[in-house]
Amino acid sequence: MSFSPLIQELIDALRILPGVGPKSAQRMAFYLLSQAPEKGQYLSQILSKSIRQVRTCDRCRMLCESEICNLCKNSNRDQSTLCVVESPINVAAIEHAGMYQGLYFVLSGHLSPIDGIGPDEVGVPQFVERLQESALSEVVLALSATVEGEATAYYLVELIKKRDLKATRIAHGIPMGGELEYVDEGTLAKALLDRTFI
Amino acid sequence: MSFSPLIQELIDALRILPGVGPKSAQRMAFYLLSQAPEKGQYLSQILSKSIRQVRTCDRCRMLCESEICNLCKNSNRDQSTLCVVESPINVAAIEHAGMYQGLYFVLSGHLSPIDGIGPDEVGVPQFVERLQESALSEVVLALSATVEGEATAYYLVELIKKRDLKATRIAHGIPMGGELEYVDEGTLAKALLDRTFI
Repeated sequence: MSFSPLIQELIDALRILPGVGPKSAQRMAFYLLSQAPEKGQYLSQILSKSIRQVRTCDRCRMLCESEICNLCKNSNRDQSTLCVVESPINVAAIEHAGMYQGLYFVLSGHLSPIDGIGPDEVGVPQFVERLQESALSEVVLALSATVEGEATAYYLVELIKKRDLKATRIAHGIPMGGELEYVDEGTLAKALLDRTFI
Repeated sequence: MSFSPLIQELIDALRILPGVGPKSAQRMAFYLLSQAPEKGQYLSQILSKSIRQVRTCDRCRMLCESEICNLCKNSNRDQSTLCVVESPINVAAIEHAGMYQGLYFVLSGHLSPIDGIGPDEVGVPQFVERLQESALSEVVLALSATVEGEATAYYLVELIKKRDLKATRIAHGIPMGGELEYVDEGTLAKALLDRTFI
């Protein structure tokens, strides 16, 4: 059926959201319009305000509302360790895991020469600058385990080693709680290769 | 971790959307802020505009932008049949199925005396008014197959019969393409009871 133009526009606009297909978008649109117009207006307002005011931290490039984010400002964090990730949401994931006490550097995605995304586009110059901090001794790479992520990691390792810093990367292997038979062969091979003493 | 206040506000606001949990809301917020700020502003704008401008049709109470919706204005629709549904999205579902050519009347949910939702709250007075239209001969009830939906249906059937109109309701049974062994016993019992000649 053809909805009235504005309803259709709203359905299409909701499909901007990741993970939202045509059916969910339609459900969301009708819910907002017929059941929760005040909540919808509130969402519209917060969305616009946060996009206007949220920026990236000058130091680590994480999303925040000030020049320097709370993580960078926190002097209790281990200043000798820097974790490199591909996007702000990865910082959230690592913080959520609760095992890491150091600082972060957020790249803008990974290197992808085919798409014209080189070192300058992902933020390598700022990263190199960051490597000059005297307190730094180790850089932990927490990039995607994809071909592009690996390529980016190798590129960064060169830069890190030039500065005589330790370069490490997070372990790949069987997910905790995962059953062996459901793990893909690539992961299993990597897990065997990287076996650790117990 | 604690995100900066505005990011957290956006994550919380996105959870207004039906079917969006904390993880999806976080993913959406980071996507909008870091990867698609223009699209996010566009969504904010359409959301606010559509909530301000979309209203309900004076005749059938479907969502639309004018006093009378396109379905009601369409003189090619069968004016003798009126389908009663519980919410605007049900009109969309029935239209999508493409088998119905008549008109609609949209209730505001179903009767629920325990929650103080009586005939006036769901729009029964407007429905009764609608029953007086001379072209009308059949009212099709397409309400939820729940206890409240059934109760509402019985209440409406009384009103319809008082006016000497035909009251019908959509069939309940095995979904098309559904396998018998996956259908719940209530549906199966109903399907047997309502078996049809072939």
